[in-house]
Amino acid sequence: MTTSPRNPSALVVDLYELTMMQAYHLTGIDGWATFDLFVRRLPAGRDFLLVAGLATVLERIEELRFTASDLEYLESLGQFRHDFLDCLEHLRFSGKVAAMPEGTVAFAGEPILRVTAPIIEAQLLETVIMNLIHLQTLIASKAARVVLAADGRGLVDFGLRRTHGTESGLYGARASWIAGFDATSNVEAGKHFGIPVTGTMAHSYVQALADEKEAFRTFVEAFPETVLVVDTYDTLRGVKRVIALAEELGDSFKVRAIRLDSGDLEDLSASARELLDAAGLEKVRIFASGNLDEHGVQRLVRSGAPIDAFGIGTRLGTSEDAPNLDIVYKLAQLDDRPLLKLSTDKATLPGVKQVWREEDGNGVAAKDTVGLAGEDLPGRPLLVPVMEGGRRLAGADESIDAVRERSAGELRRLPPAMRRLETDIEPYPVSVSRKLRALRDELSSKA
Amino acid sequence: MTTSPRNPSALVVDLYELTMMQAYHLTGIDGWATFDLFVRRLPAGRDFLLVAGLATVLERIEELRFTASDLEYLESLGQFRHDFLDCLEHLRFSGKVAAMPEGTVAFAGEPILRVTAPIIEAQLLETVIMNLIHLQTLIASKAARVVLAADGRGLVDFGLRRTHGTESGLYGARASWIAGFDATSNVEAGKHFGIPVTGTMAHSYVQALADEKEAFRTFVEAFPETVLVVDTYDTLRGVKRVIALAEELGDSFKVRAIRLDSGDLEDLSASARELLDAAGLEKVRIFASGNLDEHGVQRLVRSGAPIDAFGIGTRLGTSEDAPNLDIVYKLAQLDDRPLLKLSTDKATLPGVKQVWREEDGNGVAAKDTVGLAGEDLPGRPLLVPVMEGGRRLAGADESIDAVRERSAGELRRLPPAMRRLETDIEPYPVSVSRKLRALRDELSSKA
Repeated sequence: MTTSPRNPSALVVDLYELTMMQAYHLTGIDGWATFDLFVRRLPAGRDFLLVAGLATVLERIEELRFTASDLEYLESLGQFRHDFLDCLEHLRFSGKVAAMPEGTVAFAGEPILRVTAPIIEAQLLETVIMNLIHLQTLIASKAARVVLAADGRGLVDFGLRRTHGTESGLYGARASWIAGFDATSNVEAGKHFGIPVTGTMAHSYVQALADEKEAFRTFVEAFPETVLVVDTYDTLRGVKRVIALAEELGDSFKVRAIRLDSGDLEDLSASARELLDAAGLEKVRIFASGNLDEHGVQRLVRSGAPIDAFGIGTRLGTSEDAPNLDIVYKLAQLDDRPLLKLSTDKATLPGVKQVWREEDGNGVAAKDTVGLAGEDLPGRPLLVPVMEGGRRLAGADESIDAVRERSAGELRRLPPAMRRLETDIEPYPVSVSRKLRALRDELSSKA
Repeated sequence: MTTSPRNPSALVVDLYELTMMQAYHLTGIDGWATFDLFVRRLPAGRDFLLVAGLATVLERIEELRFTASDLEYLESLGQFRHDFLDCLEHLRFSGKVAAMPEGTVAFAGEPILRVTAPIIEAQLLETVIMNLIHLQTLIASKAARVVLAADGRGLVDFGLRRTHGTESGLYGARASWIAGFDATSNVEAGKHFGIPVTGTMAHSYVQALADEKEAFRTFVEAFPETVLVVDTYDTLRGVKRVIALAEELGDSFKVRAIRLDSGDLEDLSASARELLDAAGLEKVRIFASGNLDEHGVQRLVRSGAPIDAFGIGTRLGTSEDAPNLDIVYKLAQLDDRPLLKLSTDKATLPGVKQVWREEDGNGVAAKDTVGLAGEDLPGRPLLVPVMEGGRRLAGADESIDAVRERSAGELRRLPPAMRRLETDIEPYPVSVSRKLRALRDELSSKA
């Protein structure tokens, strides 16, 4: 299944990538470069990342082509040479990629993806790789927190209406599913990724009918096993109208749930549950939505509110508390020459690297080490080859369900304080191997 | 020029729109509905919106089609009837749209767009209209603040690498240009919207060459009038290497600027300016980037830092301080029947509405009134017809440059405290007309 229904153009680049490429071309710099993708620092209130977006990126890399109209546009800018544009016309990615598989937990400072290719190709991919891994990792990492907070209750992605564009809604649905959500309201995401879609009615349907009871009655005729939104005028009056309809319909009443979308969800869910149970409608479940994130869900779950499932929208879809990650794509090696950058607060680690994770006796993640790829360090190496010669390796073509399963396992292996979303906990220990430190110090002193 | 190179599918909907449509279809609810798009509350620290995204939305509405594979997918969900799917197959938007033109300043509670169409069509558009106007209005509103802070200095959008997807980068570039930015690094946005693109080199180019001086020399050979990034190892040492290159090249040295991308930009720009001036390089300008937003820019401009232009990236591209707007799309009328919703904190205004803006003697926006469309109220009406019979009206097809000019005029007419980005100022006065208040009260009492 294709992950990128929109296939954006090879011009999804920052202009400086193309000018640098022409300068490499002219200067005869054509060695193989290794670039690392990593998150420098985690946002406040976040302790881990859930990596996502790799399948999308690999597909884009394979498809990468400059069209005739792209080249015409570049020519019109008046700064590119014909020999360089000819080179772009025939450019295909021929390099290799190693990456943490989607659904892996990662921490700050760890390479999550590594490109090794002729420098002109590796440079071209900078922006598109950053952009797509950033988006899905951002949303998957937020969604994972919601999943932990929900503690087994149902979760539906409602983000599409306020995500940053429709592509963000599509990949946000994918990322939430990977993290453990149960469904999405986004129909395009359902079609493209096979994610279950759910959704029944909004307030507008209730408004459009003569009155609320008529709205419920007609909607149930159209969709007997539906979910009725009860807060258009007054939540508990809405619940009573559902009960009245149940009495009227008798055995043919099959409504699955009511949805609360405003007000104090803790109080209202308790009162609604009481009303429903008193009417013998124990089977009718309660679904809640409205400005929820992991904190709201955790508060409701811990209070014992009788809510069976949550719809999570804007705060997840825009990762409201942390709308971006400090993700970067940095040159680490050219041919045999390890490289670094020393800019204030933006220094990098040189060389071709690997990340090893050690787990404790219970399988809980205990300690990561970033070292040089050839080292023999304790733990499980997290970066695995996913592309060679510009083509995805067979093992890299995972189903989204396999990724979701990996993610569930990784979340189970998080340190318990992280699983409880505790605040102000010690950062997870990520160290740099002795060899890598020595290499960095040696290169720093020479720069 | 097309504004949507990616043409997403008609399935960019929340499932509940389709289920409601089927229920309307079955129930015979086929009247003409009016839906309003508006922002309920402004985010903390924001005092106005700059409306954008209309051209994109109108184009999508015109192009809206369910493909055979869309219909096949919907059928596979097992809840849609064949007669309804047949209706979708032939569905084209036949209604009308009125909207504030792009580049208009708007405030909370004001309809910025109004759809009037057969309810099944108007309901279908809910998510796609919200999503696209939300994104561009969010970014244009943030970019406008950066433009005000920069007070005439150059501004370049650097957002693409960390926007939420590549579509968000594309429309973010469009929105920033509308708000008054001078260029973007996003090549796709340059191609599709004709926005000037800029960009020269990153740290990776400096790292890839044998040393920084060699990097500058070769880059200047490839692009004589370039901008050199000087902070790869040590900013002021980088500046001195630029000066050494200028001395070596003499008259053939044509470098336009240096770029500072890390460290204390106020101090470093002052020191760099001194070094450059002392070397007779007064013409070499200073460009600064790195974690900037309107606050950083305003601080640097007010401190007198000798910075000529700014690159603004992630904090703009993700609207970091306010990554979403409380935008909604609400049913306000069905045929002749004005409608409202009373949900806690989410109540709406009924009827087909208009917004009037009164300006003071200096042309500064002074007061807005939301009233019923037929009323005769003082001021300039802000909502204008842009689509009828499902087709854009001739006047609605504006060039992006015309929109940018309108935006500049609107920003000039903002109250001075807003132009200065003062905090904790009185909200702009938006009142509800007496007739509209009376209608709301009457309907509330009946609900």
